[in-house]
Amino acid sequence: MTPPGAPDPRTVGEVGEFALIDAITSGLGTSGPVVLGVGDDSAVLRLAGDLAVSTDTMVEDVHFRRDWSSAEDVGRKAVAACVSDAEAMGAVPIGLVVSLAAPASTPVEWVTGFADGVRAECEKAGVQLVGGDTTSAAQVVVTATVLADLGGLPPVTRAGARPGQVLAMAGRLGWAAAGVAVLGRGFRSPRAVVVAHRVPEPPYGEGRVAAEAGASALTDVSDGLLADLGHVARASGVTLDVTTSALEIAEPQKAVAAAIGGGDPLAFQLTGGDDHALVGAFDADRVPSGWTVIGRVLAGDPQVLVDGAEWTGASAGWQHFAP
Amino acid sequence: MTPPGAPDPRTVGEVGEFALIDAITSGLGTSGPVVLGVGDDSAVLRLAGDLAVSTDTMVEDVHFRRDWSSAEDVGRKAVAACVSDAEAMGAVPIGLVVSLAAPASTPVEWVTGFADGVRAECEKAGVQLVGGDTTSAAQVVVTATVLADLGGLPPVTRAGARPGQVLAMAGRLGWAAAGVAVLGRGFRSPRAVVVAHRVPEPPYGEGRVAAEAGASALTDVSDGLLADLGHVARASGVTLDVTTSALEIAEPQKAVAAAIGGGDPLAFQLTGGDDHALVGAFDADRVPSGWTVIGRVLAGDPQVLVDGAEWTGASAGWQHFAP
Repeated sequence: MTPPGAPDPRTVGEVGEFALIDAITSGLGTSGPVVLGVGDDSAVLRLAGDLAVSTDTMVEDVHFRRDWSSAEDVGRKAVAACVSDAEAMGAVPIGLVVSLAAPASTPVEWVTGFADGVRAECEKAGVQLVGGDTTSAAQVVVTATVLADLGGLPPVTRAGARPGQVLAMAGRLGWAAAGVAVLGRGFRSPRAVVVAHRVPEPPYGEGRVAAEAGASALTDVSDGLLADLGHVARASGVTLDVTTSALEIAEPQKAVAAAIGGGDPLAFQLTGGDDHALVGAFDADRVPSGWTVIGRVLAGDPQVLVDGAEWTGASAGWQHFAP
Repeated sequence: MTPPGAPDPRTVGEVGEFALIDAITSGLGTSGPVVLGVGDDSAVLRLAGDLAVSTDTMVEDVHFRRDWSSAEDVGRKAVAACVSDAEAMGAVPIGLVVSLAAPASTPVEWVTGFADGVRAECEKAGVQLVGGDTTSAAQVVVTATVLADLGGLPPVTRAGARPGQVLAMAGRLGWAAAGVAVLGRGFRSPRAVVVAHRVPEPPYGEGRVAAEAGASALTDVSDGLLADLGHVARASGVTLDVTTSALEIAEPQKAVAAAIGGGDPLAFQLTGGDDHALVGAFDADRVPSGWTVIGRVLAGDPQVLVDGAEWTGASAGWQHFAP
């Protein structure tokens, strides 16, 4: 046995599936909406309203690299990206199940680090880890599924934007994409954007705030603002017009854009994914405190404009790493 | 464009993620408990009772081989194995989300075959496909998550078996393990056991039947009868005694056991996994119609006996394919 507190020098293959599950789930309890947690054939949750459910998969060398991100980063990112899809319905995320496939050669320490990340981000997001699965695979593949409670409100879909409304946003844009741009060229700074790629910072709780404020459409920005607003424009049958003067471009984004081939920092904001900001359509007098108005909903063909025109600038859009 | 009805000659990498999702989800509707299906940030389900949720991952060359199983087989198996965990709580499965990671070189035809299998098995199981994710990876990794409705009943856990009760079973045992034994030696017959490995046949609906009949403990047999009853014995703090004369050994199992090194067909029944039979503890006068009594619940140390003694026979237990 490894002494308590010492890192486990073994691999996943040496420890086996059941011991691994024990390591990941030890000490997890049940409280609040969780009737039954980890350990039986299913977990059981009690909801006050309808269930919102979404699933999200991250693959090593596609969505993250183990030399760019720590095990804890990967665990945290998996939770953040998934929970964000439930926030984007205006629901209250309550539970999460996580599947981890990893090579038998993976150090146990990597897996416990991953589990620490999952649990830390679950706590930050206010959800409970209630189940999962572990198995061997050629590379690390993580699938998280979030369970969220609509608690008496209807879901806020992408289909409800109406001409005359404003677009408003919570969270931030273009940080993770700037991080990938830096890391992809072998640099590790500016640190703020690198960290943003490793662990997104979704505006937890703001999805529910938006629903309660009367948002009529809502989505999270996972593929890039223009791409995700494109889904809203098509689902709602409206034109969306983004006002770039409302987008706050941070110093590290300017620095990255300047350092990398005369890039336009606006490209990170408009086309960079993976920061999981929330963007929604509101009546102008109902934008929640802390949200920023970034554009307007117009009658017209389903399309997204930038300052009234088509965006022809550069794209930092999320293409994963693979060609 | 490929003519309608003709196989698509392209690969996943050539088609791209969004087109792939369209191919998988085209024509999926919403009905019954599904308020919102595929296509927004989350799906939305309406439940009558508590939510049971479970997730299950299958990895190529660990849980299935593409030269042993068709794409449709893999899709069907992923659904069956996952839904079975919700049946094992006595819940009514209503929705499913599926994540598919696959190499960019995977033929589109394989993916549409997989999707056909998912949809066919969902229909058989009475659940609706409400969401998912697709991404690239080095090998095929499938994660399914089932959403099930306890509809006013408490979950039937593994912890409720009481001395004096009987053990009863629905479904079948040892077929898939016999199939793996055959396939692993390069044979393709008896066909019935090979097919059982490719696509399990869980006793859909019988979990709810058991709950309504008053089952006090319930699980599905995914790792082997003795292994899964071991979980029940430990959770309930009882001894479980399996009566082998009650186990019906089918002709193909006898044939495989005879052909492969003088094997004992009982080993397939007792230690073979992956058929997803349901086994539960019932008062003797409350065993549902169609269920077979296969043993007794006794006071004593948490352990599983076979005809009153420890099982020392061979094991066909589910070890996956990898060492």
